[in-house]
Amino acid sequence: MASARETITLDEARELALSALTRHGCDAPNAEAVAGVMLAAEADRAESHGLFRLPGYVASLKSGKVDGGARPSVTRLAPGVVRVDGRGGFAPLAIEMGRAPLIEATREQGIAALALVDIHHFAALWPEVEALAEAGLVALACTCATPMVAPAGGTKPFFGTNPLAFAFPRRDAPPVVFDQASAAMARGDVSIHAREGKPVPPGTGLGPDGQPTIDPAEVLKGAQLPFGGYKGSNIALMIELLAGALIGEVFSYEAGQRGPKDGGPPVGGELILALDPDRFGAGAWRDRVENLLAEMLAQPGVRLPGARRHRNRRETGRTGIDVPSALLAEIRALAGGE
Amino acid sequence: MASARETITLDEARELALSALTRHGCDAPNAEAVAGVMLAAEADRAESHGLFRLPGYVASLKSGKVDGGARPSVTRLAPGVVRVDGRGGFAPLAIEMGRAPLIEATREQGIAALALVDIHHFAALWPEVEALAEAGLVALACTCATPMVAPAGGTKPFFGTNPLAFAFPRRDAPPVVFDQASAAMARGDVSIHAREGKPVPPGTGLGPDGQPTIDPAEVLKGAQLPFGGYKGSNIALMIELLAGALIGEVFSYEAGQRGPKDGGPPVGGELILALDPDRFGAGAWRDRVENLLAEMLAQPGVRLPGARRHRNRRETGRTGIDVPSALLAEIRALAGGE
Repeated sequence: MASARETITLDEARELALSALTRHGCDAPNAEAVAGVMLAAEADRAESHGLFRLPGYVASLKSGKVDGGARPSVTRLAPGVVRVDGRGGFAPLAIEMGRAPLIEATREQGIAALALVDIHHFAALWPEVEALAEAGLVALACTCATPMVAPAGGTKPFFGTNPLAFAFPRRDAPPVVFDQASAAMARGDVSIHAREGKPVPPGTGLGPDGQPTIDPAEVLKGAQLPFGGYKGSNIALMIELLAGALIGEVFSYEAGQRGPKDGGPPVGGELILALDPDRFGAGAWRDRVENLLAEMLAQPGVRLPGARRHRNRRETGRTGIDVPSALLAEIRALAGGE
Repeated sequence: MASARETITLDEARELALSALTRHGCDAPNAEAVAGVMLAAEADRAESHGLFRLPGYVASLKSGKVDGGARPSVTRLAPGVVRVDGRGGFAPLAIEMGRAPLIEATREQGIAALALVDIHHFAALWPEVEALAEAGLVALACTCATPMVAPAGGTKPFFGTNPLAFAFPRRDAPPVVFDQASAAMARGDVSIHAREGKPVPPGTGLGPDGQPTIDPAEVLKGAQLPFGGYKGSNIALMIELLAGALIGEVFSYEAGQRGPKDGGPPVGGELILALDPDRFGAGAWRDRVENLLAEMLAQPGVRLPGARRHRNRRETGRTGIDVPSALLAEIRALAGGE
């Protein structure tokens, strides 16, 4: 079932996103930050985190759940701990405001943490770790959200898709970056499969009856499964503990009980760790990274995580992006164009 | 194929381990530290990291690869970074000597890292993260070692089994702890399957021809596979970058090219991160952890990671441990008993 698609430039897409967000209550700094992460995803052809999310962002502004004019506050809780209170806004502006203090703390201390609370996160995590790696730091990030994934052995949604993202800087090349759900499949991808009527691979999830299914619509009503069985489930649990208990934010199962079900992001937290490789005593780390990657990529069939996104990014600047026509019509309506 | 087994007390096992280690060149502090981690594994019935490892430890002393009298040195590289140079010894004493400085740095800074270099690690990682959680800290640890695992898409050993361990403290209960190989199955477990002539599950590894196999002996000659496909492979890569490039230690593929193949541990590094939950602004974190775990365990079939080990530990103090008779005979010979 092929859907009609339309090509637009990244600039056109950005203008549409900014218009739709400001028309529904975002002030300029929040609209710029939110549009920035959606457009970064579109530029990398990471469609499930691109404009596909815009109707959800707008829905959360319309319902009053998210404050489009929130001004996050930054506090240094300890020499190595920066906290940003997002004050009920979307995550992107809070992350931007925490970035410089986190980088400063990491360069001073060798390692530091950024605890983000009272934010609404609806994006991929690679933008935040990639930005830190571009500043020369190693970065890890994780967040929990609406309950969608059953713990290993269970049948009911409990964990969010609980992504873990990691970035390591390289010399003269984009960082090594991965950003992966603890779920066997990212929620956005299950939704896209459902929208396009495609089955999901076995192991993706359970139906509402607790039985395995390859029907994405049944998985959306039932429970997703963690990747790699109990090991992925343990990583999801670690993320609940880090991005929930440690920083004083909600767990996924609580986020699911709060706020209007408006199709947008739930309230929650995020933890970002950063390490300065220049403070760990390994002078030649930049050369060593290149050695490692060259040796790994010498095996036929092996890919570098993040490389496809970075390659796409070089292309979409020239070619623009392909957006499903139905989504584009919806976004144009939200932006007040027609 | 059932093997004969013999029951001994933990004290008897400890004496045998100490005798075998000191008889082959360990001084008292190193022998105590190494025996300590092996016996902790036996106490928890984590057999693949228990006395099963003793012949390998002894082999590395006999070959001269490991210095049984190494005295590790501790340096503070940055406010949040402690480095321990193991000076070619076994890991356990280096880890013990780094623990107090890491705890002190973490309480001061909120977050800190311990970089261990020039060690020979042959144990599970949960002893180090569990000890930190018992001191009230959140801990993560990872290490890379001999190449055994093919990257996703590849067919040749490149990664070590690259374990990731995590512990989170609890009130009035043992910490939440997991320690999981990035490989679909821990190497020690593949070896035990081979020794006992049991097939391994599909997805465990490839034979030397690059084809999938369920014969553990073929997997040992070929390549293990990461858990969860490319996601486990990404975690293994992250661990090479953290425990190799970041801290200035060897990658798994290099460790495989160094030192005598004596059956003992290769030289390498380990990275441990610790976070102080009392410095992250969440006053009620202890209650919150209990809420999370109670909710998770309310689903039938769901288990708490680490719980089985902790339950075993309460039992083995009374019952002693069951050791394969052949292994026990080998260890008694190494200890000079008969």
